[in-house]
Amino acid sequence: MKLVLIRHGQSDWNLENRFTGWTDVDLTEKGADDAKQAGRILKQNGYTFDMAYTSYLKRAIKTLYYVLDEMDELWLPVHKSWKLNERHYGALQGLDKAKTAEEHGEEQVHQWRRSFDVAPPLLETSDERFPANDRKYSELSKDELPAGESLKGTIERVIPYWHETIVPELENDQKIVIAAHGNSLRALVKYLDNISDQDITDVNIPTGVPLVYELDNDLNPVTSYYLRDEESSN
Amino acid sequence: MKLVLIRHGQSDWNLENRFTGWTDVDLTEKGADDAKQAGRILKQNGYTFDMAYTSYLKRAIKTLYYVLDEMDELWLPVHKSWKLNERHYGALQGLDKAKTAEEHGEEQVHQWRRSFDVAPPLLETSDERFPANDRKYSELSKDELPAGESLKGTIERVIPYWHETIVPELENDQKIVIAAHGNSLRALVKYLDNISDQDITDVNIPTGVPLVYELDNDLNPVTSYYLRDEESSN
Repeated sequence: MKLVLIRHGQSDWNLENRFTGWTDVDLTEKGADDAKQAGRILKQNGYTFDMAYTSYLKRAIKTLYYVLDEMDELWLPVHKSWKLNERHYGALQGLDKAKTAEEHGEEQVHQWRRSFDVAPPLLETSDERFPANDRKYSELSKDELPAGESLKGTIERVIPYWHETIVPELENDQKIVIAAHGNSLRALVKYLDNISDQDITDVNIPTGVPLVYELDNDLNPVTSYYLRDEESSN
Repeated sequence: MKLVLIRHGQSDWNLENRFTGWTDVDLTEKGADDAKQAGRILKQNGYTFDMAYTSYLKRAIKTLYYVLDEMDELWLPVHKSWKLNERHYGALQGLDKAKTAEEHGEEQVHQWRRSFDVAPPLLETSDERFPANDRKYSELSKDELPAGESLKGTIERVIPYWHETIVPELENDQKIVIAAHGNSLRALVKYLDNISDQDITDVNIPTGVPLVYELDNDLNPVTSYYLRDEESSN
């Protein structure tokens, strides 16, 4: 059984070098092209899906759309959940990464970006960036609304979603693709490959490249690999 | 309570003047632009939605995608169903409309196109165009698979879907947009406006223009109107 993960391609704020998190920025043209390329590679390699999962953020939703369009599978059911969102970057969202490093020091920024359980500075609930002020998060309970998450905090919502929502479909032999984000996919990769809290922070999932997991009947990974275009990876 | 219907814009086979039906042809660039324009008009007029419905056909799915993208509502749940598909045009699918008229006579073609309950010539189940040969219809029971439908046949799947799936959400105060096709929307309009079998065949729903129904608490229409851009409709 195969499961495919895809991290969205370049977004406007990747380009601008700003902390993004739950900010709903768009894909760049390159990001869209990367997604289409991922769809073509999946199709060329004979992949088909039965259903798809993505986040509430348009850079992941659009990536999935381009992939499915190239595969001629736009008709598939697509399930969207905030639980697959990127890590919430709290009060850092929108800030320039270089300026933040000047202000707070490289070491502090490195810790915010790369530690397992250090959360960024939290948002005030009155901040317009606080998720309660965005209609798409109106379904979330008070306890669920993040003001800023560590990778650990991200894992604590991604893995329950995996078990409650995705695993039953895999057990039902559904072929699944998940289009999501650097940290929500890290959460899944950490769980599937049983990577330690320390090591996961060094795992980087490339953007716009399908990551295939072959799973046994107990959903343990037998192997995993990236699907790359032979020519473009030269 | 408002319900919005949108008929997809121009497709490749509209341009080529061929019978389309369930053939999964793409939107043209103009069709995509029309959809984006519809999204902009909805946004300018302050519309927001809670969920969306569309068919299994990419010209409707893409229309909905462009609308939601312009409205910044790509995160909404989108429900796709074959029951909102265009009328199945049977053995006429793919044929040139003018040539078909030369061969069978204008009168016969008019009857296939405009009568209420005359089905087109049916597909053989061995025909590659028969829906059982398309993976996206694998969920349909033998009785559900159409070999060709009249408008009446289309209504017989659209209206049960309306009652079973869409009405409960409207009753739950959900704001809904439906992106679909000339005949599946005609089915809804016939039902909502209580139009006779004879008169409905003369009702033409323009492409790419939001059709708004204001409904009372019993879901009876109070009024309905098209949302057009003031400038472009001059």
